[in-house]
Amino acid sequence: MAHIDLGIDESQFPGITGPMRFRPETGKPLMELAEVLLRGPHSLTAGERELIAAYVSGLNECNFCCNSHSAFAAAQLDEGMALVDQVRANLDEAPVSEKLRALLRIAGAVQETGRKVTSELVEAARTEGATDVEIHDTVLIAAAFCMYNRYVDGLATLTPTDPELYAQSAQRIVEHGYMS
Amino acid sequence: MAHIDLGIDESQFPGITGPMRFRPETGKPLMELAEVLLRGPHSLTAGERELIAAYVSGLNECNFCCNSHSAFAAAQLDEGMALVDQVRANLDEAPVSEKLRALLRIAGAVQETGRKVTSELVEAARTEGATDVEIHDTVLIAAAFCMYNRYVDGLATLTPTDPELYAQSAQRIVEHGYMS
Repeated sequence: MAHIDLGIDESQFPGITGPMRFRPETGKPLMELAEVLLRGPHSLTAGERELIAAYVSGLNECNFCCNSHSAFAAAQLDEGMALVDQVRANLDEAPVSEKLRALLRIAGAVQETGRKVTSELVEAARTEGATDVEIHDTVLIAAAFCMYNRYVDGLATLTPTDPELYAQSAQRIVEHGYMS
Repeated sequence: MAHIDLGIDESQFPGITGPMRFRPETGKPLMELAEVLLRGPHSLTAGERELIAAYVSGLNECNFCCNSHSAFAAAQLDEGMALVDQVRANLDEAPVSEKLRALLRIAGAVQETGRKVTSELVEAARTEGATDVEIHDTVLIAAAFCMYNRYVDGLATLTPTDPELYAQSAQRIVEHGYMS
């Protein structure tokens, strides 16, 4: 049971979807931000950006968001869930590009606090070819998931355990996006 | 110097205002969210909501956001900056309503992690008369400032030290809001 009465059947609207319906005025900019960051035109693929979201959600131990964005990343990466699991288990050894590894390290710093993002971390990403927009968006994706994760867990919303439900959500997101 | 080239004179666009201009696609939903949460129609005053934002930003040690939202709160609270300072220094003893104190305790829990928001904290707020929307928005304001704070500090944007600059920003925000 969520901490507040969301006015919906929680089993039908788990995680963030309940509060989005409870308060559509805030739901709109929240989903617009996700759409731009994770699916807008970009030099990073949607799969790579969802991987950053999944990685940060894992560090924040937000199971709903981590399950969701892991599934969304897996659905859009050639290597599927195996790569998501490898990144989450051991970023240093995971078979990702050095640029993406450097960006994920920046995301991991942001998860702790913005002040942990050092010039060295940024320089390392730049050396691997990361652009200013890629660095900016990595910082903002990580920061945004520090919000979404706290929103979902701070209201104690329902977290389904059946992986099939997250795979179904992934299909919807890949086809229709966050604004549907 | 910010970590990336924001394409602006940082002294003219300090803190979050630089990245908003660098990336207007994400700037728009970020400011819409602030406008709804902090200035939209509400049973909590704008001053009370800005106080929650200032309190969380202080806990996150984000000087730009804390200075800004402290000034925005002070400009809209009868008791001005003295009350902001008291809340930040000692929430237990600050002369705020018991409802606002309970909501600020929820915000403080969210700042650590959503999982720190206990049924007891929520029940305490409800006992003091807090509504479901007030509890929801307190959680989301606190979560959102965990994003804004990380965004500002993760990009190492400029933090002015002159209090007069924050007081001028407060006048603009009170008159024209976050979307101008």
